[in-house]
Amino acid sequence: MKNYKINVQYEGTRYNGWQKQGNTQNTIQEKFENVLSKMSGHYVEINASGRTDAGVHAKGQVANFKCDVAMSSDEILDYLNHYLPKDIAVTQIEETDDRFHARLNAKSKTYKYVICPRQKADVFIRRTMYSIVDTPDIDAMQIAAKKFLGTHDFKGFSSAGKTKKSTVRTINSVDVIENGGIISVQINGSGFLYNMVRIICGTLLEIGLGKKDISCIDEVFETKNRSLAGVTLPAEGLTLMEVFYK
Amino acid sequence: MKNYKINVQYEGTRYNGWQKQGNTQNTIQEKFENVLSKMSGHYVEINASGRTDAGVHAKGQVANFKCDVAMSSDEILDYLNHYLPKDIAVTQIEETDDRFHARLNAKSKTYKYVICPRQKADVFIRRTMYSIVDTPDIDAMQIAAKKFLGTHDFKGFSSAGKTKKSTVRTINSVDVIENGGIISVQINGSGFLYNMVRIICGTLLEIGLGKKDISCIDEVFETKNRSLAGVTLPAEGLTLMEVFYK
Repeated sequence: MKNYKINVQYEGTRYNGWQKQGNTQNTIQEKFENVLSKMSGHYVEINASGRTDAGVHAKGQVANFKCDVAMSSDEILDYLNHYLPKDIAVTQIEETDDRFHARLNAKSKTYKYVICPRQKADVFIRRTMYSIVDTPDIDAMQIAAKKFLGTHDFKGFSSAGKTKKSTVRTINSVDVIENGGIISVQINGSGFLYNMVRIICGTLLEIGLGKKDISCIDEVFETKNRSLAGVTLPAEGLTLMEVFYK
Repeated sequence: MKNYKINVQYEGTRYNGWQKQGNTQNTIQEKFENVLSKMSGHYVEINASGRTDAGVHAKGQVANFKCDVAMSSDEILDYLNHYLPKDIAVTQIEETDDRFHARLNAKSKTYKYVICPRQKADVFIRRTMYSIVDTPDIDAMQIAAKKFLGTHDFKGFSSAGKTKKSTVRTINSVDVIENGGIISVQINGSGFLYNMVRIICGTLLEIGLGKKDISCIDEVFETKNRSLAGVTLPAEGLTLMEVFYK
């Protein structure tokens, strides 16, 4: 069987996230596996670099699957884009090393969270941003963003609940950019706990709005107390931008 | 009564175009008039620079309306964006000269038509572009585009049917731009007949695909025969970008 690596886009609005879990219907993974299995005539499993939650989008998700078909890579790409729903697309495909695994081999990922003051809300991108009424202090958000850099126990910045697995992660960059009133928070890290990006962005936003002090970040690292961090921002503003491999 | 000029965006996908006509339901004009009349406590009529057809989008539509409310311009803008559907937005508002009329005073308009090869279709912009399977010759389209410049009788490039009104219009620029496989045709002109932009773009696309010869453009100008021109491309690819006033 050949191993294919694909780059995938989706607008997550309509879906219950990437991953099939128990009885969860309408996942992006399920849409892929149905089309791939139909194409191959046998069940095909697909692995993404990581699950994305319900309503979260992707511009550069990476996945791999193994199958055996008498089709070129380009033909497979055309087949997938023909049969997948219109809010899911494959942008690239390549045959890759048999050992490549999209999740296990991922080195880091970049997520972007977009926040937009309501009066600036562009109707063409409204499905991929979170619209707010007040105007946050960008400088305060930029200063606070630096606090997240490096390796920390992010337990207090996640909705993971009790777990025996490590909650230590490394954040390589956090950039808060303002352009025409639209605020983007772009985060690259080795891996992310459940809801971690949305809670980091919620904490930054509350600091920008003067609802929380910058000191809360260190407190959450020390106490691992979720309730001291900011709110979990809605899924609609979050997009997985890129996955990096060696 | 004060006269307000507003800049408007909409994703036209869900609507039967801008203009209320007879029993046509679900127009953008109707959505505005309902919210404005509720805000003012009296019936408010709104004039746009021109109608856009069912499914056509706008990034820079301009409209004006007269009303009398004890609200600042900013408050009116917030009110409209709060009560209008999420796929319609007001991006600017200003109190203007009593004689200003968005349609009668418009000097020219710019439309953009976006064509995208299916394998490049970006899920985040798919609602505002027309997706095709084959790859057209951009050079041929650019050369043909120049034929439309200047003042011509565009009767053969419209779906206007029989009319006693003048079908002479002036096109100031037609730019065919290719970027990462996505083709944009941007047209500025003094005014446009019914379906004129979509038929010009259909003609350019068929020339790019080798289905029509560039000579057909002069033939249509001479004969005014609609059937010699290209197809009317679908509404989804068309966006009104900007309206110019003196």
